[in-house]
Amino acid sequence: MEIKTYLNEQRLVVESGLERYMLTAAGEHSTFAGHIEAMRYSLFAGGKRIRPILCLAAAQAIGNRPAPDTELLPIACALECIHTYSLIHDDLPAMDNDALRRGKPTNHTLYGEAGAILAGDGLLTWAFDLLSDSKESTLPPEKRLAIIHLIARAAGSLGMVGGQELDIANENKPFPFETLRAIHRSKTGALITASILAGAIAAGADQAQQEALTRYGEQIGLAFQIVDDLLNVTATTEQLGKAAGSDAGRGKATYPAFFGIEATREKARAAVAEAVSALVVFDEKADHLRALAEYIYNRSH
Amino acid sequence: MEIKTYLNEQRLVVESGLERYMLTAAGEHSTFAGHIEAMRYSLFAGGKRIRPILCLAAAQAIGNRPAPDTELLPIACALECIHTYSLIHDDLPAMDNDALRRGKPTNHTLYGEAGAILAGDGLLTWAFDLLSDSKESTLPPEKRLAIIHLIARAAGSLGMVGGQELDIANENKPFPFETLRAIHRSKTGALITASILAGAIAAGADQAQQEALTRYGEQIGLAFQIVDDLLNVTATTEQLGKAAGSDAGRGKATYPAFFGIEATREKARAAVAEAVSALVVFDEKADHLRALAEYIYNRSH
Repeated sequence: MEIKTYLNEQRLVVESGLERYMLTAAGEHSTFAGHIEAMRYSLFAGGKRIRPILCLAAAQAIGNRPAPDTELLPIACALECIHTYSLIHDDLPAMDNDALRRGKPTNHTLYGEAGAILAGDGLLTWAFDLLSDSKESTLPPEKRLAIIHLIARAAGSLGMVGGQELDIANENKPFPFETLRAIHRSKTGALITASILAGAIAAGADQAQQEALTRYGEQIGLAFQIVDDLLNVTATTEQLGKAAGSDAGRGKATYPAFFGIEATREKARAAVAEAVSALVVFDEKADHLRALAEYIYNRSH
Repeated sequence: MEIKTYLNEQRLVVESGLERYMLTAAGEHSTFAGHIEAMRYSLFAGGKRIRPILCLAAAQAIGNRPAPDTELLPIACALECIHTYSLIHDDLPAMDNDALRRGKPTNHTLYGEAGAILAGDGLLTWAFDLLSDSKESTLPPEKRLAIIHLIARAAGSLGMVGGQELDIANENKPFPFETLRAIHRSKTGALITASILAGAIAAGADQAQQEALTRYGEQIGLAFQIVDDLLNVTATTEQLGKAAGSDAGRGKATYPAFFGIEATREKARAAVAEAVSALVVFDEKADHLRALAEYIYNRSH
């Protein structure tokens, strides 16, 4: 299947899940209508749904295909809630101060800073509500706990939140390449890897499979961030749907700043090749994971 | 036992748990030292630890005393992490813009707005990390999942986060008493009730016991918030450790604004009496819960 068709189809699956699980402002929750509307605005603002799709594709690679509706979909949707919250908080005036995201006004532009902070807090908490909701999942409790723990660890202070703090703390400062790697690994890589592992664990992956998928996840996480750095330099604001050139403007160290554009592109290529080679233990059921790795690279040019 | 002795003793139990579970900046996590330090600053800034103590006291009331270290303590500490995150975010310039909390500078005053937002995000996520950490708990997985779900629901958009949004959205506006009740119930009451129920469920409470404790929790949550409103009017900044009179300054509707000080005190008294009467089904093992209800009222004068 053409990767774009696959991505489109899976995006619709994820979005139907988000519609199903996410709070609605009408009816019994109308007291909180303003807050729910703010969360929904960013959740349905047109993301590519890469993390939930990686979760679904990893489960498919394992092959003991779990029932997507009742086993995988709550996990996939919780991952997207966490990703969305992180974008809302990253865009805040106190952080990256971005006015545009996916070509639309950022959350705080519409709902104010307090509203945006709380929309983020609400989405993060909702992710754990959904992951622990026994009405929505038929996975065994031990497995669900393991997945909650994996996701919390990746999203938190030793992962995404810690990486964002490192990123902010190092703005406008010279720092060694090793710090850039630590930022990418924690800020972007951790949740991407956790998305893949969560799907795999739900589908019954054994230890060797989990290790192979961890290597795959680390490399596509790296490729993903390198490509983001590249696009920030080479694409236009219109193409990105957010401010182009903003990294340089904020004095952020990036791959292109360290290596130049051509060598950076080569590093993305190498990461994708390594990701694909980590999948050698899997059969053709991992073809969507392989195609996703190529897709991430192809965004760069 | 004198309530103050009990509170002091239990506070030390909770704080030893927080020391045990919370990340430290040294060693392997030194990459994230700045962020971890910001979280620890607020977590160890001298809270009364009321929510975790209610959790422990509710388990004691049920009587099948669970092993506190391996069953209750992670839950109690996770509740305190969530409470602390909510204070950090509430104090932000975009929210209540408070410079003092518990007599010390607020988190953002020391670590900047971005640092404080991320310290809050980190503490919230750490709570779910701890609740799902199978190395730290011997409770059966189904019970732990039920407790995670209970806490996420109470802390999130239909509870504490939603209540904070309502509170902010209604500043400097006239609104009906019913809205004030909704703010108190969601912003303060939900997490207090969940703290009590989480301890009770961990200890094996049956349905009737859970219902009685829900009534108890709702009433002490109400009393707690009424007393907070009262103290904001009647106490000095020095007594409070935070800005006195700030509610009126921000145009917040409060119990004293609706009813005056005397009638408000009477309402707190009535809520405490109702809380205690909900405990009629319990024997003397619930005496600490009874004393805690009285303690909450006695803060008011």
